[in-house]
Amino acid sequence: MRAVWLRGGALTLADAPEPEPPPGEALVRVLLAGVCRTDLELVHGYRALDGIPGHEFVGRVEASPSAPEWVGRRVVGEINASCGGCAACRAGRRSHCERRTVLGIRGRHGAFAERLSLPVANLHAVPDRLSDEEAVFTEPLAAALEVQQQVPVETGDRVVVVGDGKLGQLVGQTLAATGCSLTVVGRHDAKLSLLAGRGIRAVDARSGSLPPGRSADLVVECTGNQEGVSLALRLVRPRGTVVLKSTYHGHAQLDLSAVVVDEVTLVGSRCGPFAPALDLLARGAVDVRRLVHARYRLADALAAFDHAARPGVLKVLIEP
Amino acid sequence: MRAVWLRGGALTLADAPEPEPPPGEALVRVLLAGVCRTDLELVHGYRALDGIPGHEFVGRVEASPSAPEWVGRRVVGEINASCGGCAACRAGRRSHCERRTVLGIRGRHGAFAERLSLPVANLHAVPDRLSDEEAVFTEPLAAALEVQQQVPVETGDRVVVVGDGKLGQLVGQTLAATGCSLTVVGRHDAKLSLLAGRGIRAVDARSGSLPPGRSADLVVECTGNQEGVSLALRLVRPRGTVVLKSTYHGHAQLDLSAVVVDEVTLVGSRCGPFAPALDLLARGAVDVRRLVHARYRLADALAAFDHAARPGVLKVLIEP
Repeated sequence: MRAVWLRGGALTLADAPEPEPPPGEALVRVLLAGVCRTDLELVHGYRALDGIPGHEFVGRVEASPSAPEWVGRRVVGEINASCGGCAACRAGRRSHCERRTVLGIRGRHGAFAERLSLPVANLHAVPDRLSDEEAVFTEPLAAALEVQQQVPVETGDRVVVVGDGKLGQLVGQTLAATGCSLTVVGRHDAKLSLLAGRGIRAVDARSGSLPPGRSADLVVECTGNQEGVSLALRLVRPRGTVVLKSTYHGHAQLDLSAVVVDEVTLVGSRCGPFAPALDLLARGAVDVRRLVHARYRLADALAAFDHAARPGVLKVLIEP
Repeated sequence: MRAVWLRGGALTLADAPEPEPPPGEALVRVLLAGVCRTDLELVHGYRALDGIPGHEFVGRVEASPSAPEWVGRRVVGEINASCGGCAACRAGRRSHCERRTVLGIRGRHGAFAERLSLPVANLHAVPDRLSDEEAVFTEPLAAALEVQQQVPVETGDRVVVVGDGKLGQLVGQTLAATGCSLTVVGRHDAKLSLLAGRGIRAVDARSGSLPPGRSADLVVECTGNQEGVSLALRLVRPRGTVVLKSTYHGHAQLDLSAVVVDEVTLVGSRCGPFAPALDLLARGAVDVRRLVHARYRLADALAAFDHAARPGVLKVLIEP
């Protein structure tokens, strides 16, 4: 089958072997896949991958010997395939399974391909009313919702999202629904306008209208860069929380003395729950369609990657 | 009065002005004061101080116009003097008061002197059964207890303390009382023996007998150096917690990608509650006397600082 292949930081279009689902897994035909910042970081060597990248997808089940009722269903899929037996799995932290494979990231071919294989346990049926373009946002939307799984957000809490990119847009929209006092800080007029159009206070980091320093109960860092982390630490109040939500490549410099003196909590945040993400999409409580900036055929996937890496670009989709 | 004075990183013995307690404050004659890592870091420029350092003390109240019942009492004192009116104070975070002064650290002369002034609200009476040498540990012991205020520690939790110094000893002893499965990692035979003598599993970081990586539910970093922070991040399990308990000078390099992927929580930790610290000391539940390595007269305070800075040295006390 046709697929994007990443090896040694080089992307190519390849004729890849067909997935052969082991027992308990389903063969899924990919309908649409999304390019994520992590995919771009993988190309830049964030971690070694010799295989097919891509972990945001919507597809249709073509074969599922162990659970034939899934055949024909339109699905999205959780990306961590867990063993069920390790200490992390037994403690209920299956997304942290010690032996996990991760779709398109670690030990498992991903979604920039005609077909993929995932455990049936990872699949979620997509409601009919959702388009493919909406459903493909389930995975990043779930990641955005993970923030609220980790940190309780109360009505009136002063919350700042740093970053107006793909993730910042989704985190901003999900947090806006909590009734917190929300500000998103960004650097791109068009992206800030998207947020403002949803009634979200969106300020330009370069404008001098930043929220006051040391005042936010919660800051969610969505830029993935040193500058964003430093800004997050300047904005959070003593005993406040900074959630690190992005993919960071390399080490960052942190003023740990400030973290200690102000007793700040930093929380790393990765994958989140699919069911509430699908529910938000189905209820129309978040708007993802305006985040789609381009759509490419799989044959043009390399151009899609280039497009996704351009400054100011939000979601780029790839259709096999 | 005689006092140690720090200016521009230089310590001198000085003839300092007598404290003149404003309304609501008490004049306290210092009986004994302890040298803390923060004092040593202040000398190395951790933050600017032009004044008398020292924040660990036991003393006797000599004057207290607004609350005369305190006169003659032996006391220890919380080091953050708060305004009561700022947002942090009104939210109950008085140790994070935006306008606070901090004994011997920020805007308030400290305890390496014959006398000091502190708000009466900061004072705690010392039970008669405690010696001065025990009571002077109330402040660092309270700081050790802050860990448990911030992170619930359950019976059986796998907890690692990184560092066998003054703070590691106190944190280790306080955590041992929780019934957790505790290991303290250090680099000094004598200090590790002290812990082992209390029935605490103490391992040499150089011995290859470290706890397995990515296995600790909670790691408390008590070294204040980059190496300790890196080790803490290697030892903590996915979704585990690292408490940063020491004074860090300058910036540290952190692998934020690992923090995000493993959804680790980092918690800065500073001052803690005095009442339970005094209670632990009064019940003999912690042993602080064996942590005293030397005792100097105030006239020899500069030698005391030199002594405290030597590798392997635990608590050095200064007696006015």
